Amino acid sequence: MTPVKIGILGLGTVGCGTINVLARNGTEIARRAGRDIQVVAAAARDIQRERECDCSQIRLTTDPAEVVNDPEVEVVVELMGGTDLALSLVLAAIDAGKHVVTANKALIALHGNGIFERAQEKGVMVAFEAAVAGGIPIIKAIREGLAGNQIEWLAGIINGTGNFILSEMRDKGRDFEDVLAEAQALGYAEADPTFDVEGIDAAHKLAILASIAFGIPLQFDRVAVEGISDITREDVGFAAELGYRIKHLGIARRTPKGYELRVHPTLIPERRLIANVDGVMNAVLVHADAVGPTLYYGAGAGAEATASAVVADLVDVVRALTTDPENRVPHLAFQPDALSDKPVLDLAEVETSFYLRLRTQDRPGVLADITRILGEHGISIEAILQREPDPERGEATIIMLTHKVREGAMNEAIAAIEALDHLLTPITRIRMEGLAR
Amino acid sequence: MTPVKIGILGLGTVGCGTINVLARNGTEIARRAGRDIQVVAAAARDIQRERECDCSQIRLTTDPAEVVNDPEVEVVVELMGGTDLALSLVLAAIDAGKHVVTANKALIALHGNGIFERAQEKGVMVAFEAAVAGGIPIIKAIREGLAGNQIEWLAGIINGTGNFILSEMRDKGRDFEDVLAEAQALGYAEADPTFDVEGIDAAHKLAILASIAFGIPLQFDRVAVEGISDITREDVGFAAELGYRIKHLGIARRTPKGYELRVHPTLIPERRLIANVDGVMNAVLVHADAVGPTLYYGAGAGAEATASAVVADLVDVVRALTTDPENRVPHLAFQPDALSDKPVLDLAEVETSFYLRLRTQDRPGVLADITRILGEHGISIEAILQREPDPERGEATIIMLTHKVREGAMNEAIAAIEALDHLLTPITRIRMEGLAR
Repeated sequence: MTPVKIGILGLGTVGCGTINVLARNGTEIARRAGRDIQVVAAAARDIQRERECDCSQIRLTTDPAEVVNDPEVEVVVELMGGTDLALSLVLAAIDAGKHVVTANKALIALHGNGIFERAQEKGVMVAFEAAVAGGIPIIKAIREGLAGNQIEWLAGIINGTGNFILSEMRDKGRDFEDVLAEAQALGYAEADPTFDVEGIDAAHKLAILASIAFGIPLQFDRVAVEGISDITREDVGFAAELGYRIKHLGIARRTPKGYELRVHPTLIPERRLIANVDGVMNAVLVHADAVGPTLYYGAGAGAEATASAVVADLVDVVRALTTDPENRVPHLAFQPDALSDKPVLDLAEVETSFYLRLRTQDRPGVLADITRILGEHGISIEAILQREPDPERGEATIIMLTHKVREGAMNEAIAAIEALDHLLTPITRIRMEGLAR
Repeated sequence: MTPVKIGILGLGTVGCGTINVLARNGTEIARRAGRDIQVVAAAARDIQRERECDCSQIRLTTDPAEVVNDPEVEVVVELMGGTDLALSLVLAAIDAGKHVVTANKALIALHGNGIFERAQEKGVMVAFEAAVAGGIPIIKAIREGLAGNQIEWLAGIINGTGNFILSEMRDKGRDFEDVLAEAQALGYAEADPTFDVEGIDAAHKLAILASIAFGIPLQFDRVAVEGISDITREDVGFAAELGYRIKHLGIARRTPKGYELRVHPTLIPERRLIANVDGVMNAVLVHADAVGPTLYYGAGAGAEATASAVVADLVDVVRALTTDPENRVPHLAFQPDALSDKPVLDLAEVETSFYLRLRTQDRPGVLADITRILGEHGISIEAILQREPDPERGEATIIMLTHKVREGAMNEAIAAIEALDHLLTPITRIRMEGLAR
């Protein structure tokens, strides 16, 4: 059979990784797909630059529209990132009747609903396995592998940079800023680390996962997001003492009232498999009604790991080229006319347990006042850890683990406790999840 | 659209689980698949029996051929087990142009090559996700999710009973026989536990995984199999002391000379994620050239976990009903005319590290004799752990970890050491794998 001809937009790390994987494993891939996949055109900002991939057989251009409009190109692979130019190029490809493979999580999280609607009209596929958790086939697992299940919740370590930082803080007792600087030096974190450490990147991915798990439209703007920049070495240590690890999780849960979508640091029991996913690795734990818990682990970033997902999408697209669009796997796992319109809940409505760390004056009555206020807000305490007070400074540190409580009630209780004059600093609070069921 | 009509052969645990999942999640499944899936006929040995699923809308028969020949049945779901009757029914279904979904690992491992050839001729699909690792979508992950990779090796905990026994032995310091009896009482192990504890069941699954990972024909008879019935509490304890856990792994590896296919107890470093997969849970670690390591974890057995995989296959089959057979995912991941004919290696050719436990007389020169013989066979020692000898009994226990060595050389060395008159019992040897790359 004739090879399928593709064009790539963006020749950065993942673009070159994709070209290298297709070249090195071309025979292996054709043995599976039954057809060769051939890169015929590619666009990059600087086409003169030395690259770590062989582009000698590829028509290079600085104008991405040229690749999209290239009559030979059947599938457009968008690996340029960003959401403005990428969006218009992806829509142009769809309008030209071309299939699209993209690794762009921001693009899908922010503009996916519109993109998929247009793709649906035009009968083309838009595949985005590489947008979430790099090389882990998590989109395919949820969308197809668990198709018989009602998915109840999922929790994922879906940002490698954040996980690297938290792992180092625990293993070596280091501070956040210190590890962040190392992550930047190692190339794991960007010069501007906001997207990674403040949870935006994870929120993009969580919005996508929630959508395919529950059959809801993409709702990035409804994801509650909290980063890890306020996590201290102290909290990591206390958590460990209590048998927990702190992980930056993206969590999506189905409840009778609606959906929870949230990204935040989370204390989880150290015995859980996902608590032992360290360094830059990613993992997604999915709890579904028939199969129970399943976990998917692997590299969440990197040139070839991401390329692995891009190529898997290409093989899927190649196989489905001749199929009736109605029988293809729907973009968001559920048929477009069968999406749920239940709301995403406000964070104040979400129920979790909490870890609280309070730095207080060391004087009688402090603990009584605090526990009274918690009690008044219906918050019961599961464990208290009080450090030997420091008499010279006249201060004490109290750690409390609470039972489940509505976040709104916790907000009020914290405000009331902070209004006491016992507190030396604002209360640190970190949500907890058992992840058992 | 009209519902897809299916017939089920076998109404045991998984059969009933499948009926229950289809009933409970019917809406959810149709939201994904775009069509309803309806069970119209089923065969069971005893159709009068009370069952834990509602069969009131299903035509029941004691004659499975009736289901296969039922003109309304488009997809035959084989959940009866066994390899004789199941084989003839599956072939009859294929000959009648019907698609097949099966959870029968023995059937696929032993007769898959012939079944797939017949299915290929007839243009029908035979799906078998449920045959390996229960609800974990491992077949789909390897066959489609990693389609861009050359898979280098995989190692799986693919028998829940064996993993439960080894986990209990380690956690509670119990003996093999003691835990096996409990597993039987809990219903995890069969009255005749041979298939589980001697590794036959795992070997069936490994043959299937290796085939789809490497693109080789199914070769169950070439899998080297060793069970866990000789593992002692003592070995589990020594392994822990050295930082290892003993797991019953199925391992498949590509080497320049051919493929390794083996099932045996294995010492693995306790820090590995897969070393922490406990109880009846399964996990498969796959190492592939582009994506690196990925791991898939979940329930390997159970009514609804297995049904989850059966239903996922049904949805896949339903989607592909109208597709051109040439564009479907090949049964064994690779196009039938593109399978590799490199051989499966004899176990004697395989290189691994070893854990050796020797019970010897406590007298001078014993260790010197043993290390000399190992040296003569090119075996170097990485660690030695010698227990305080028991002077009353006049015996000593020596634990050795070796570097990598060809199994054939190890066999010769062990024979030579056992020919010395120092040894009080035969040498215990357990293979070791780093699983790092």
